[in-house]
This record gives sequence, structure tokens and C-alpha cells, in this order.
Amino acid sequence: MKKLIVGVMGGGEGASPEVCEMAYKLGGLIADQGWVLLNGGWGVGVMDASARGAKERNGLTVGILPDRNTEFASPYIDIPILTGMGDGRNFINILSSDIVVALPGRSGTISEIALALKNGKNVILLNFPLGDLFVEYQKAGIMVSVNKPEEVITTIKRLCHLDQEQEEDTLV
Amino acid sequence: MKKLIVGVMGGGEGASPEVCEMAYKLGGLIADQGWVLLNGGWGVGVMDASARGAKERNGLTVGILPDRNTEFASPYIDIPILTGMGDGRNFINILSSDIVVALPGRSGTISEIALALKNGKNVILLNFPLGDLFVEYQKAGIMVSVNKPEEVITTIKRLCHLDQEQEEDTLV
Amino acid sequence: MKKLIVGVMGGGEGASPEVCEMAYKLGGLIADQGWVLLNGGWGVGVMDASARGAKERNGLTVGILPDRNTEFASPYIDIPILTGMGDGRNFINILSSDIVVALPGRSGTISEIALALKNGKNVILLNFPLGDLFVEYQKAGIMVSVNKPEEVITTIKRLCHLDQEQEEDTLV
Amino acid sequence: MKKLIVGVMGGGEGASPEVCEMAYKLGGLIADQGWVLLNGGWGVGVMDASARGAKERNGLTVGILPDRNTEFASPYIDIPILTGMGDGRNFINILSSDIVVALPGRSGTISEIALALKNGKNVILLNFPLGDLFVEYQKAGIMVSVNKPEEVITTIKRLCHLDQEQEEDTLV
Repeated sequence: MKKLIVGVMGGGEGASPEVCEMAYKLGGLIADQGWVLLNGGWGVGVMDASARGAKERNGLTVGILPDRNTEFASPYIDIPILTGMGDGRNFINILSSDIVVALPGRSGTISEIALALKNGKNVILLNFPLGDLFVEYQKAGIMVSVNKPEEVITTIKRLCHLDQEQEEDTLV
Repeated sequence: MKKLIVGVMGGGEGASPEVCEMAYKLGGLIADQGWVLLNGGWGVGVMDASARGAKERNGLTVGILPDRNTEFASPYIDIPILTGMGDGRNFINILSSDIVVALPGRSGTISEIALALKNGKNVILLNFPLGDLFVEYQKAGIMVSVNKPEEVITTIKRLCHLDQEQEEDTLV
Repeated sequence: MKKLIVGVMGGGEGASPEVCEMAYKLGGLIADQGWVLLNGGWGVGVMDASARGAKERNGLTVGILPDRNTEFASPYIDIPILTGMGDGRNFINILSSDIVVALPGRSGTISEIALALKNGKNVILLNFPLGDLFVEYQKAGIMVSVNKPEEVITTIKRLCHLDQEQEEDTLV
Repeated sequence: MKKLIVGVMGGGEGASPEVCEMAYKLGGLIADQGWVLLNGGWGVGVMDASARGAKERNGLTVGILPDRNTEFASPYIDIPILTGMGDGRNFINILSSDIVVALPGRSGTISEIALALKNGKNVILLNFPLGDLFVEYQKAGIMVSVNKPEEVITTIKRLCHLDQEQEEDTLV
């Protein structure tokens, strides 16, 4: 069966150490589940940290790069997809992810959240308050806010209907 | 000299009659200046209304369509650019616009505002409150909020440095 | 009624003076018909020459640029569409053209001919022999070879069914 | 160290059983080397056969799909990259491949060969005669013709400088 692909978005060079630490933990937890981590592929910020976290737990990492070569790619990316299309690749990030997690970022991350919601993807905000901007998606349960990397995993299982075993366990 | 290209973004099918009326007026005012109107090219909402406004004043209209054919194109688009790349074309809308005007819309419009700001374009919000989301760009004067189509024109002239004549007139 | 958009493809920096002269003439003839000229937008080779030819006859020119800015754009391009996606834009050139004319070029031009044929567009080769590569399209009349810019115009009229007047004249 | 990514291009629905058999064998041989197989991702022709061959030997397969969902994806693709950009994705196939192998195909395959050569990638033609079209690349050793899947592997090793061990063995 095809492995779940989890898109992890968030700040690049401007990401704080705390945000990168969260991304690193999340990457490891995603790898622990046997899921594929997909991000923008650069060797900075949330992209680099989440890929490093996944690789240290033997996960598989895919980077959708804006560039025509791997000059700026994170060394923790297994499969660099070179699009050569700049921020136009944000749409590919979203389409290729079964579900999208967004850590704090700026306009690039917000564009990805917007594209994800527009294209019917669930979005999990990890410590990233967005005000009222997408409030209708939040009310509908399409966008969900959580505070810890561990909650991202349980939320993914719930939204992607991967929690049958747990439910069965609970029933027993 | 190359004509200024003004990108007009905003809601599609969900746009209210009031928003469409504003888009229609704005399209006419852009045409009156001899500027080119660029939008997403579909025959609905802000796209259709702004193109119609421009054509009724003999303007030139360019539509960057997500599709591979002109089936959904507005009849008021002179030059339909067929990208065949869905919402990936939002990035082309932004790059190809010398300046971006955003009327009320949802996630698609927000993705375009975010991509515009990320790529160094000025954004004029016409009656489209976004909360604190891009507050740093607003403080820096890169994103500007106005309430009337006429103010869009004067703001474009100011931000694109097309107001020398007026300044000279004032000096005299 | 929407104006016909004619895509003109061919060599860039490597194009010979003879090829550029042909492109220049073709651009003028396209403008004389009131058609829109579309090409790759750079200020070299067939792109620059065909746009210059069209502008000197008051035509309208559209350039689908691979870049994020107009640094390399031909000054004869009225509407520079900035895709920021490198050769990925070749597909947009093809989709956006009602019909494609190819002058001698190399791998870039051949990729555009191939994409045009794959996507159901007619291709007119102007002095550009391709051997047997697309022989099935030539046999089917989808791809046509001509030797002079004037023949391009009559072939476009025939393939796009714009030649009713001539036929009527002939009948009289 | 990052694994080599080998792009395998060729016919889709129209591919003959012989061509598919070759693609199947090639996929297996690529997997045996520990390389990643990348193709256009659909469940037909060379795409499906090469991915099946790789999966039966425990290889890793990446498909760069033209679509927005996995409806047409081969079940043998591990990582479906959804571009939503139709044939515009051919450029991504090429950029993301360290080296490109082309089996017999039609205009889509030829567009990929042309884009590969234009962007400095080596191309190995497996039983795919192209006439004189790219003869200058063949003379320069950038494009190479072979007849058997096994020769593709040795040619990749030579062109990607992965044959040091063999050379050392030969020296001893």
C-alpha cells in the first residue's frame, strides 16, 4: 500500500530555533509512523530541520525544490524534485501531500496554506495562529490548530482515517 | 514605452454583486489610464467584471487561465494565456503584474497576495480587510488599503512613480 | 471577436541572419492580418526579429518569458508574461497559440513542435526540415512545410478556416 | 550519499509489448543498482512497465504526474508527485533526473529528449532511432544509442562516473 505523504511547510531562513526544534521533532515522529515527509527541500529553516529529524529516524524525505539544480537542497533530502519554477512549485507541494502541516512562517507558508485549503486538503497548524483569515475552514474542521508535534500525528491519523486499530483497541 | 500591467485579483463565483460592481468600475478606470488589465481570465466574479469594465473603455485585457483551453474564459479577455497548470498559474499572475490590486476573495486571492508580497510586488487592498496577517508589509508601505476604485488609481501612480506630472504641476 | 494568436518559435542566439530576416518578415505579415504574435519573448534570434517585424507594422506582441523579470525581454514585446519557470514555459507557448509556426532552431524549438503536435495544434514549418521524425503528422496534414513567410499566412488561413473570402472570390 | 535518479521516458498507451518488456527489464536493472527510477507516473506503457520492473526488485519509484490526483497513477509508483500541469511537467521530469533514458515513444518522449539535451542532461536512447535530428549531441557523446537494457546500465555508470571500481579492478 502506498505510504502516506505528509507535507511540512513553514519558515525558511527566518525560522526561529524554537520553530526549527519543533520541525525536527515532527520530522522524527513522521518517520516513526513509516510516512513519507515532503517539503520545499531547501537546507534552511523548517525544511532542513524536518528533513533532518526524519532522516535520523530512517524516514524517507522528498523535497520539491524551486530551483533547477540541488545547490540549495538540504543534505537530508533523499529525493530532490527539481521544478525550476520558483514559488510556482508551492502548488505542487500541496497537491502531492496527502495532508499538510504548517509551522510558523511568512508569506510563502501562507500561500501554501491558502492553496491547500482551496484544493481540498486538510491543514494542521502547529503553533501558527492565523487570526480570522481562514475561520470558515477552521469551523468546518478542515483546518485544525495544535500545539505539540505529537498532536500532529494523532490529528493526521484522525483526519486520514488511519486510526481504526486504535478505535478497535478502545472497543475491546 | 511599455504599458503598465495592473493585476486585479479577487473572488470568483462567490464574489458579491457589490464586489463585482467595484471590479467593473476599477477595470474602466485602469483602461482610462491606458494601462493593461491582467487577471485570472475566467468568466465569473471579479475576473469577468473587471475585464468587462476595461473593454467597455477600450482597454486591453490579459487573462492567465488555469486551463488548457478557453472554455471558461471571459468574453472580455483579449489575450487568453493558457497555462494548463491550475492554481500553479497564480504565481504567473503575480510575476507578470507590475502591481497587484486585491478585491475581496477567499483562499485563491489570499494565495496571490502572499505570493505577491513574497516576490516584492506592491499590493493594494480594495475593501479587503486581512486582519494582522501581513501587518509588517502594511507598516512598511508595501501593502496599502483603500476604499474606492479611484483611490486605487492614485495609489498605483504613487507606488509606480507615475505621478511626476502632478508633482510638477504642484510645484508650479 | 477574439484575435487569432500565432505562436512563432525558432532559434535564439544561434539563429542565422537569414532566419532572423525571415522571422522579421513573418512578424510584419502577421501584424498586417491583425493577428497577435506570441513568442518566447527574449531579445535575441527569432523571438526578437519576429516581434520587431510585428511592431513596425503596429501589431500586438506577447512574450511568454522563462524568467521572473523583464531583464532579457525584447523591447518589441508589448505584453511580457513572466512565468519564472524556465523551459517549462514552452508548454504555455503552445497552449496559448491558436497555431504554431516553427523556424529553424535547435532542441528548444523541437520540444515546442513536439508539445504542439501532442496537444492537437497545427504546426507550420518555415524552412525547417525535420527528417522523418514527425512524418505521421505531416502525412495527416497536421504539420505542414512551407518555404516563404507569405505561404505561412495562406496556410494559417486555410488551417484556421479564415479563407472564406478568398474562396468566394474564386467562385466569382 | 544521495542515490542516483534515473529518468525513464517512452511511449504511453501506444507502446508495443516489446518496448514494454524492455522497460520492465530496465526497471529491474535500475533497482538492482540501488538507483531511484523516475518517470511520468501513469499506469500505462513504458511508465507502468518500468515501475513494475523496479518494484519487483525492491527499487524505489517516483512518478511526476501531469494530474492533480492519483487516478491514473501506476500502482508501482511509490512517490506520486502531483504537478497538475499537464505536459508542462515534462520539464520537471528532465530536471529531476540525473540522467535520462528514452525508449521508443512519440511526441511526448521527443519533447523530453529535446528538453534534456537543452538543459545539459545526458540522454541514452534504448532502441529508439531519431534520425539526424540531434546529430550534434550524438557526435559530442552527450546522447548515446544502445540496444539492450544491460548496456543502459554500463552507459549510465560511464557517463555518471560511477565505474571507478570497475576501472580499478581492470588495472589490477
